Amino acid sequence: MSNQIKVSLPVIRRLPKYYRYLGELLQNGVIKISSSGLARIMGTTASQVRQDLNCFGGFGQQGIGYNTELLRNEIGKLLYRGQRLETILIGVGSLGQTISKWITAEDRGYHLAAAFDANPALFGSEVCGAPVLPIEKLAEYCRLHKPQVAVLCIPREPARKLAPTLVGLGIRGFWNFSHYDLSVNNPDIIVENVHLGDSLMSLAFRVHNEAVSHP
Amino acid sequence: MSNQIKVSLPVIRRLPKYYRYLGELLQNGVIKISSSGLARIMGTTASQVRQDLNCFGGFGQQGIGYNTELLRNEIGKLLYRGQRLETILIGVGSLGQTISKWITAEDRGYHLAAAFDANPALFGSEVCGAPVLPIEKLAEYCRLHKPQVAVLCIPREPARKLAPTLVGLGIRGFWNFSHYDLSVNNPDIIVENVHLGDSLMSLAFRVHNEAVSHP
Repeated sequence: MSNQIKVSLPVIRRLPKYYRYLGELLQNGVIKISSSGLARIMGTTASQVRQDLNCFGGFGQQGIGYNTELLRNEIGKLLYRGQRLETILIGVGSLGQTISKWITAEDRGYHLAAAFDANPALFGSEVCGAPVLPIEKLAEYCRLHKPQVAVLCIPREPARKLAPTLVGLGIRGFWNFSHYDLSVNNPDIIVENVHLGDSLMSLAFRVHNEAVSHP
Repeated sequence: MSNQIKVSLPVIRRLPKYYRYLGELLQNGVIKISSSGLARIMGTTASQVRQDLNCFGGFGQQGIGYNTELLRNEIGKLLYRGQRLETILIGVGSLGQTISKWITAEDRGYHLAAAFDANPALFGSEVCGAPVLPIEKLAEYCRLHKPQVAVLCIPREPARKLAPTLVGLGIRGFWNFSHYDLSVNNPDIIVENVHLGDSLMSLAFRVHNEAVSHP
């Protein structure tokens, strides 16, 4: 518990971006970088960079800047905690299969342990090294293996029906591609929504309105 | 120009969610709903709902609530403007093929006109009804057909190299799955980023830290 860090969601959302940009700087041989330099390439402000990194104790030295490799390693440790999260995939359609490559990519901090689907044609096959099991085996599997994260690549209605079961089985984190907003009825779980339809519709609104705003 | 509506990005991002929830209420036979009722099912507050909808002139009447169908239609009009956006897909790998189903889904406001890839094996094939063309044909195609939106399903480096060309060819909106942040060097274009890797890494951080925050 002493390891817990309370940080606001926008800062958490920016951490992977810092991690990406620092990795790129490292590849380009940049050893030290100032907060203003980092801000410029990331399209933000130096004060934002300093504020964000101060949330975690601040890794820089005034007037000297940040050691690129050290900062990246420290952010990496914050993100991964040196331990992969045991993860299951629900729904092995086109989206599930595509998305599984992200889950199993190195350095993301996940281990895809099993996938579940209702389609018998898929049982016995594998998706990125994980076996595809019948959805009926979900409860038994979770009680035995205690996965921490579920990735939902199913439509809204099946997601709504399955959510209480998954939460009841101890799943704490959800990467949610369904249009069901899990956190409304389950305020205590951790959800990252990827609402692709909403994202497209926001884009349409902005293009039609030429609203120049930066995400 | 008189049609332009200046609204903050967080409000724009919530519009599709209102649209989704109102559609669901309609399906369930709900004719009128109060701001607090809408807030409760969406996991937000009544004052947030009223503020958001007031940005667009406010569709409700005090003490009577919102007419579900009318409100949904008005939000739909804001999102679509009655006209589909001519759209091209760059990158017809597993992600591009999966994502194309979202672009061509009804009611999203897009028309997928063509797809581009560097792989000759794909030339002449179709993805969701759009022809796959060689990436070398991109400039010619854009000059002739003037697409408004590009969907980038390619890695970071190709996206970085291609971005100035696409912007120069008049593309105004980007649905960006690459890890290249287009808006840093092109502050005037409209970008919706779907950074799947960042989303996964934020989730890992939150699960490890048990940060209870609601997106």
